Amino acid sequence: MDDRYYMNVAIDLAKKATGQTSPNPVVGSVVVKDGEIVGFGAHLKAGEAHAEVHAIRMAGDKANGSTVYVTLEPCSHHGKTPPCSDLLIQSQVKRVVIASVDPNPLVAGAGIKKLKSAGIIVDVGICESKALALNDVFFHYIKTKKPYVTLKTASSLDGKTATFTKDSKWITGNEARQDVHRYRHQHDAILVGVGTVIADNPSLTTRLPNGGKNPVRIILDTHLRTPIDAHVINDKLASTWIITGAEADEKKIEALTNQQVTVMKLPTKEMEIHNLLTLLGDRGITSLFVEGGATVNGSFLQSGAINQVITYIAPKLIGGAEAPTMIGGPGFSSMGDCMNLSIKECTRIGQDIKIVSVPM
Amino acid sequence: MDDRYYMNVAIDLAKKATGQTSPNPVVGSVVVKDGEIVGFGAHLKAGEAHAEVHAIRMAGDKANGSTVYVTLEPCSHHGKTPPCSDLLIQSQVKRVVIASVDPNPLVAGAGIKKLKSAGIIVDVGICESKALALNDVFFHYIKTKKPYVTLKTASSLDGKTATFTKDSKWITGNEARQDVHRYRHQHDAILVGVGTVIADNPSLTTRLPNGGKNPVRIILDTHLRTPIDAHVINDKLASTWIITGAEADEKKIEALTNQQVTVMKLPTKEMEIHNLLTLLGDRGITSLFVEGGATVNGSFLQSGAINQVITYIAPKLIGGAEAPTMIGGPGFSSMGDCMNLSIKECTRIGQDIKIVSVPM
Repeated sequence: MDDRYYMNVAIDLAKKATGQTSPNPVVGSVVVKDGEIVGFGAHLKAGEAHAEVHAIRMAGDKANGSTVYVTLEPCSHHGKTPPCSDLLIQSQVKRVVIASVDPNPLVAGAGIKKLKSAGIIVDVGICESKALALNDVFFHYIKTKKPYVTLKTASSLDGKTATFTKDSKWITGNEARQDVHRYRHQHDAILVGVGTVIADNPSLTTRLPNGGKNPVRIILDTHLRTPIDAHVINDKLASTWIITGAEADEKKIEALTNQQVTVMKLPTKEMEIHNLLTLLGDRGITSLFVEGGATVNGSFLQSGAINQVITYIAPKLIGGAEAPTMIGGPGFSSMGDCMNLSIKECTRIGQDIKIVSVPM
Repeated sequence: MDDRYYMNVAIDLAKKATGQTSPNPVVGSVVVKDGEIVGFGAHLKAGEAHAEVHAIRMAGDKANGSTVYVTLEPCSHHGKTPPCSDLLIQSQVKRVVIASVDPNPLVAGAGIKKLKSAGIIVDVGICESKALALNDVFFHYIKTKKPYVTLKTASSLDGKTATFTKDSKWITGNEARQDVHRYRHQHDAILVGVGTVIADNPSLTTRLPNGGKNPVRIILDTHLRTPIDAHVINDKLASTWIITGAEADEKKIEALTNQQVTVMKLPTKEMEIHNLLTLLGDRGITSLFVEGGATVNGSFLQSGAINQVITYIAPKLIGGAEAPTMIGGPGFSSMGDCMNLSIKECTRIGQDIKIVSVPM
């Protein structure tokens, strides 16, 4: 067993907490002594123990003289919990192997420096890209103060999201739809346009066999057309935020506010994606799952503010020159201007195909 | 080594000749004696030796007392070559293992009967579905007298075939485009609408590193709008057939005929896909590769006459409510009416994704 092996164990542990640590990153840690794993842990929830703390606790006295593998640089500052680097020093570990440096300006190398000053051997960069990928969302948010945007679409093989009569139940099969609920669970917020609310009256909640966390429901609604009896207003199953233009009608805002809906005005009259993302970032939304109709998706595409695209393709042919497609709006005029993606994953899911891609 | 092993060898041999045996099926054969392969062969070209003949010739005297594996029932009739069942009997083989019965009414069990009457042990059905899949095209043609229709499309991840300005060079990468040329090589005919000829002036030839067979180029052109200086008329690189309506202008037909173009009138004024396929089947076209624009693809979808769909998806987002998609026309009105497909293959090809599916 080598460093890569143990770091992969730590990465696997970190993955188990995906979606439940926001606004913190997921982190995994393994303590190894004399060729045996003597402790491991992961950070499970913001405000609670970090991965190294769980792992060192499990190791007990065996931490003394051990090697600690951790997917992210141990913190060196007093946050909601004491600094992990202090704990590692107190436990007299011999060596710390770190996959990636913490991009958080409050840490950013200070943890490593502190460990080295205490005479601990520190190795950095083992399985770095894999560890960075664990926290795409966190790192994006830390650097930009805006949410990481995942665009989700589902279409037929011929690129349609409904028939020309707008029938869309169902394009994809049960497995793909369950997968969407797992993503909802992992996101801080879900976003649709008011057109989708009016047309489909969705509840936008997470429906998984064992429950799941509901994301904040965000409706883009420039002219406040959301019906007062819509599920997202009435069911009180999750928070609903309606984002509207600078000139939205105050009476309508009051009526919605009376229903415990949060209405937020953008500084501009029309919807502007970068202003929206700044607003959401300020409110602590680190990850945004966009399930909007063609127009909303088109606004996100045109703004360039897409960090990941998840596409479900059903083996069906719908046809129709007038049938809706997944991305509307004006679109790009030349192939050279299009958004080029790189495919991270292409798998079969039930009867359908799932493609995960990120901008190149 | 068991029967399945040797039959898979025969199936592999048959595959090598895909695209070059039309209007005959591809067939592979292996001769085994005392646990060793003593001969093998495949049918390579219509009018030339059948698979068993090549295999028996290679085996020479060792054919006596051997087991012969063949992917399709040996023929029992005098066609362009003498009956294979006679050869097997003369060669005194001991046993014949057959993957699938020949659906050709001229054979259909008669070959098996003849072998059995001669005292040869005959086993049928080993790897049957794999062997049948080798000759989807042939069996379809034998049964329906119409070509097997493969619809090919290429789109962005958001289902667009071009930008709203009709820029489409290139959606997919080099590997996917090469793959399309392999399919052209394997098909008897390629089909587009006159709109594609006017817009793109394609040559519709097979361009592979080592050459390749050009399919017959078929243009659907109800009102004979194909420009007389189009590549498909002028380059003389392959036969061009223009299919037109019953009331097409005779002078225009004459002008095209003078250019060695074959013009065929359908019995109806407008394009009708089933009439078209009957006409092409009568002319010996067993396989048709449809690379038409959205309108032509829509006509094929609406007619139900699609046997296979090959979709290339490029990881690009083009956007645009007005950007063209792969299948136009009216389209189906409800999800229940859509064409449901089953995915046979989903693979990465260069930077793109290739999906092969067939109607359920």
